[in-house]
Amino acid sequence: MNFTTIAVDALGGDFAPSAVLDGVALALQRDAHLRVALCGPADVVEPFAASASAQGRVNAVVTTEEIAMDESDPARAVRNKKDASMVVAARLVKEGVAQGFISAGSTAACLVAGTLVVGRIRGVQRPTLAVVLPGKRPVVLADTGANADCKPEYLLQFAQMGRAYSSSILGVENPSVALLNIGSEEGKGSELAKEAQILMREQTANFIGNVEGRDILEGKADVIVTDGFTGNVVLKTLEGSLSFLLGKLKSIFMSTPITKLAALTLKGKFRELKLELDPEQYGAAPLLGTKGLCLVAHGSSSPEAIANGILVGAKAVRNDVIEKITIAIQQHSIAASTQTKEQAE
Amino acid sequence: MNFTTIAVDALGGDFAPSAVLDGVALALQRDAHLRVALCGPADVVEPFAASASAQGRVNAVVTTEEIAMDESDPARAVRNKKDASMVVAARLVKEGVAQGFISAGSTAACLVAGTLVVGRIRGVQRPTLAVVLPGKRPVVLADTGANADCKPEYLLQFAQMGRAYSSSILGVENPSVALLNIGSEEGKGSELAKEAQILMREQTANFIGNVEGRDILEGKADVIVTDGFTGNVVLKTLEGSLSFLLGKLKSIFMSTPITKLAALTLKGKFRELKLELDPEQYGAAPLLGTKGLCLVAHGSSSPEAIANGILVGAKAVRNDVIEKITIAIQQHSIAASTQTKEQAE
Repeated sequence: MNFTTIAVDALGGDFAPSAVLDGVALALQRDAHLRVALCGPADVVEPFAASASAQGRVNAVVTTEEIAMDESDPARAVRNKKDASMVVAARLVKEGVAQGFISAGSTAACLVAGTLVVGRIRGVQRPTLAVVLPGKRPVVLADTGANADCKPEYLLQFAQMGRAYSSSILGVENPSVALLNIGSEEGKGSELAKEAQILMREQTANFIGNVEGRDILEGKADVIVTDGFTGNVVLKTLEGSLSFLLGKLKSIFMSTPITKLAALTLKGKFRELKLELDPEQYGAAPLLGTKGLCLVAHGSSSPEAIANGILVGAKAVRNDVIEKITIAIQQHSIAASTQTKEQAE
Repeated sequence: MNFTTIAVDALGGDFAPSAVLDGVALALQRDAHLRVALCGPADVVEPFAASASAQGRVNAVVTTEEIAMDESDPARAVRNKKDASMVVAARLVKEGVAQGFISAGSTAACLVAGTLVVGRIRGVQRPTLAVVLPGKRPVVLADTGANADCKPEYLLQFAQMGRAYSSSILGVENPSVALLNIGSEEGKGSELAKEAQILMREQTANFIGNVEGRDILEGKADVIVTDGFTGNVVLKTLEGSLSFLLGKLKSIFMSTPITKLAALTLKGKFRELKLELDPEQYGAAPLLGTKGLCLVAHGSSSPEAIANGILVGAKAVRNDVIEKITIAIQQHSIAASTQTKEQAE
């Protein structure tokens, strides 16, 4: 087995660089075929690369600039700060030195770096930020915020790219796809959802139709597509409602000596549940549709989340996610152009 | 105190007419100043009006038609079936015989009946379907599905109508308003959210800016506005995630004899939590912006939900929700026309 190299932005995130370095160390421990190109200031990346944690599999890439978490104009920052750790990490992917990059820095800047520096796969109109959600079975939700305003054709491509990711990461054969909508019946929805439905019925493999918000965790589809505004709101609503309910449970358990005792007997089971619902198990959200994998980690990522992000990214690369997306988009372009030709004739 | 009359569609809902009749009986028990105009077939409404449950405060309104739950063209059904129980209930509101109507029938038909039969308040561009969500404090979310595609001005009016409802039903003075968005910073979002933000900053009283999905249950604002597509998806995502998590808890509690015992000690507390989160406590979603209150109950409404819908509706009427909305919309129209004049000068 060859090595897979992931470029890591040492500076991104609320707890950088320590959470990032600890995450890299964990990932290297768990994956013997992983190499890391660690991008950041000399005093951060050089000592780490030389340390025992690096196991001789970390290449220190010294950078001199940094993109701030709250960069007001992320596109300009990515263009101007050519030696920022995030931009250099993206460039390593473009140059083929690394097969993917991960950053817990500004999400907006990360999306720009992916799209502009790594570059789109030919035929991809808009790369999409996907997330794997827990539930009765894991589901790939796309888009979760890369594209606040969408055209129906974008959603069609999100479905194709989501299918490629589902099969690469979760091993699902012929993943089913649903459109997030406000009614399950055909013809329902906003103008966007109505048009996307028609396109998807014609052109998306294993399209099962509309699903509603209440179906997301029910495992009705392997891939659920929506525009980035709705997807982002859904993702954060799920986060919010789970943490609200877990908070409520905690206060119930803490209310009396008897409930505290009851809580003790349930502790193990609750730990399992929290793990099962933990968004950190997939560590980072992949930007799909770029020529190498871009992994957007949460700003508050723990070392575990960073490690999982790196490992999931490496797995996706080994399972040829980029090739799968490229083929899916090409096949579709050919089908669409044949169709246009037929219509013209 | 005068009587408040609510017109009730006896035929709407999955468990009609029995759930509806039981709900009416409950509501009459709890509210001595309530009258009901019960619309439906003679063999349903006449015996009930004459029964002890009606307490002499139910007026039987015999109707001969019915709107199906899955009516494929709800607008045509409402126009054509002039003697359908739902349409007659709406007409009683238009004629001033009742101050509001409730139906657990087809939501789409109910929205049409509200807008076309009861009629919009002058100046209201689009009536909005609001819902009161539980959380750290109750929050009015609008729109939750009446308008899948929105213009920024609609959202501005949803805010005004939501404020009127919040103060009428929840007794909030000067309710705060937030825009549901994909980032808390100014300038974030889809084109719609960006434009709505600008309008709301200028024209919405007590506007606190953007909130994200994770803030919905956190009680950050009294009223949260969004387009009907996003709002509907959010509402159903919340429903889905709460029921998913409660299901998980149940299976944890049932897993061993010890956890069953632990569950017993927590039973009372869990019952309280379920009640607290129960959407049925507000019983029905009000359509705001029509000349009388239209209450859209869930198709699967229990008698408790129907009763609460009627009682909440009666309370809103007594607290002058319609007048409050009318004044808010008029004031805004005057302000907007003054502004336009000033700009022209």
